[in-house]
Amino acid sequence: MTKPGQVYLIGAGPGDPELMTLRALRMLEAADVVVFDRLVSPEIMALAPAGARRIAVGKAPKCHTVPQDRINDILLTEARAGHTVARLKGGDPMIFGRGSEEAAHLMAHGIVVDYAPGITAAQGASCATGVPLTHRGLATGVQYVTGHRQAGQVLDLDWKRLADPATTLVVYMGVANIGQIAVGLMTEKLPGATPVLAVSRATTAAERRMVSRLDRVAADVREAGLSAPTLFIIGQVVSLYAQAPVERILERVEAHG
Amino acid sequence: MTKPGQVYLIGAGPGDPELMTLRALRMLEAADVVVFDRLVSPEIMALAPAGARRIAVGKAPKCHTVPQDRINDILLTEARAGHTVARLKGGDPMIFGRGSEEAAHLMAHGIVVDYAPGITAAQGASCATGVPLTHRGLATGVQYVTGHRQAGQVLDLDWKRLADPATTLVVYMGVANIGQIAVGLMTEKLPGATPVLAVSRATTAAERRMVSRLDRVAADVREAGLSAPTLFIIGQVVSLYAQAPVERILERVEAHG
Ligand SMILES: C[S@@+](CC[C@H](N)C(=O)[O-])C[C@H]1O[C@@H](n2cnc3c(N)ncnc32)[C@H](O)[C@@H]1O
Ligand SMILES: C[S@@+](CC[C@H](N)C(=O)[O-])C[C@H]1O[C@@H](n2cnc3c(N)ncnc32)[C@H](O)[C@@H]1O
Repeated sequence: MTKPGQVYLIGAGPGDPELMTLRALRMLEAADVVVFDRLVSPEIMALAPAGARRIAVGKAPKCHTVPQDRINDILLTEARAGHTVARLKGGDPMIFGRGSEEAAHLMAHGIVVDYAPGITAAQGASCATGVPLTHRGLATGVQYVTGHRQAGQVLDLDWKRLADPATTLVVYMGVANIGQIAVGLMTEKLPGATPVLAVSRATTAAERRMVSRLDRVAADVREAGLSAPTLFIIGQVVSLYAQAPVERILERVEAHG
Repeated sequence: MTKPGQVYLIGAGPGDPELMTLRALRMLEAADVVVFDRLVSPEIMALAPAGARRIAVGKAPKCHTVPQDRINDILLTEARAGHTVARLKGGDPMIFGRGSEEAAHLMAHGIVVDYAPGITAAQGASCATGVPLTHRGLATGVQYVTGHRQAGQVLDLDWKRLADPATTLVVYMGVANIGQIAVGLMTEKLPGATPVLAVSRATTAAERRMVSRLDRVAADVREAGLSAPTLFIIGQVVSLYAQAPVERILERVEAHG
């Protein structure tokens, strides 16, 4: 019997290869097989060994390329065949990444799993724009939620809990539902003037940013044509964007790249 | 007049030098002057150029070495003198790091600031222990709060908002107030049996972990003698620790290193 291989569950960060950790790079460079998501940039894939087999497992919105069970099977099969498998995910594998589901499946079958954390999209967008996630006097904490639900399920977010002017709210996977999210938050008394920063493809050459406010963000997103992957940072910290008053920035819809 | 230098605001990650990003390392290697916090490990400081001047600005709990205004002054003075200044902080500069305050001060004086995000302590602890921050069916989101208040100020956390069984709560700087935090959460109906993972010095050789539950965590922390820096992960995701039932892990107080 072949000696079983192992799986590296690697956070590739938000896009810019320079934002990978040293460990992520080391693990990627050691791989025979790379199983990667759509969010992982070609520049990062270029860092995998030339001889490594590359298996794309998709996860593009509205395009269910490879179901999760099948991904679990692929990882298990490759590891059992004795390979060193790099499982590359956008951002951090432990934040909206299903990394722990894959790990549980592998570990239940006796495969050793090692992690490399990654810069999550919120941090990538924050450092790219200079907008902090916490800031004395503006946000005492930060929360990450997902604005996505599986087809046919309602977006049952706890608006009362999320509508907190004293913390920063970061919405992942929210571009399709941002209108509903804004209304939910305003219904629970988060002011319509609350500033919102939308960042698409943060830290990549295709990065786009838009500053808006809660009561206009859905229309602005539509007008600007922002699409996934986009992240929303909602809260007073956004007023620090470019160290300029938000009202001024609102006049234009900024588009880089 | 000297050409002004610039400041790199660098997240050094949770401790393990391998968890620095490639950008953080590049910026650190380019520095003439390194201004660093207590949380930055000696292994990371060893990566700074041998000839770079090192300025410790403390921030140990209960030991107000260098006040924030003075840190701002040091950074400004060094940059104005034409130096390339690496401002090294634990974790990510934009999460409970006051990085944006320092950046605002510098930018107001015309100094160029560049960022390198860092793996924040929550992600370091998560990948070190295998406990995810979100997980289908266990946590639909995650929030980061600080359990620390300035001397003389009450811990005025919004317990109702935080006591949510459906999300993961991560408490930074909470070791001194964990008893008060647990009581606040239980008062708002978060069950006493909610699992809690405490991780001290995550990702370093001195890492210690303890699994407990909300109604016992304060006593367990005292008994185990955990001290800062310690992070608390509170919520059902902790049940995935070591893929073993929480009840079993509770029997022992685990101490590594
Ligand atoms: C399935 S989640 C994966 C999150 C990832 N595990 C992380 O930690 O960042 C995908 C969502 O992350 C966000 N995202 C990921 N990369 C991004 C980027 N470079 N810019 C903006 N948003 C991004 C978007 O909201 C996207 O819809
Ligand atoms: C002033 S905050 C700085 C947080 C940092 N900017 C970050 O993003 O992780 C300090 C707190 O972070 C947490 N922390 C930082 N490094 C840690 C580590 N290696 N292990 C556990 N907790 C850590 C502790 O709660 C500590 O009290």
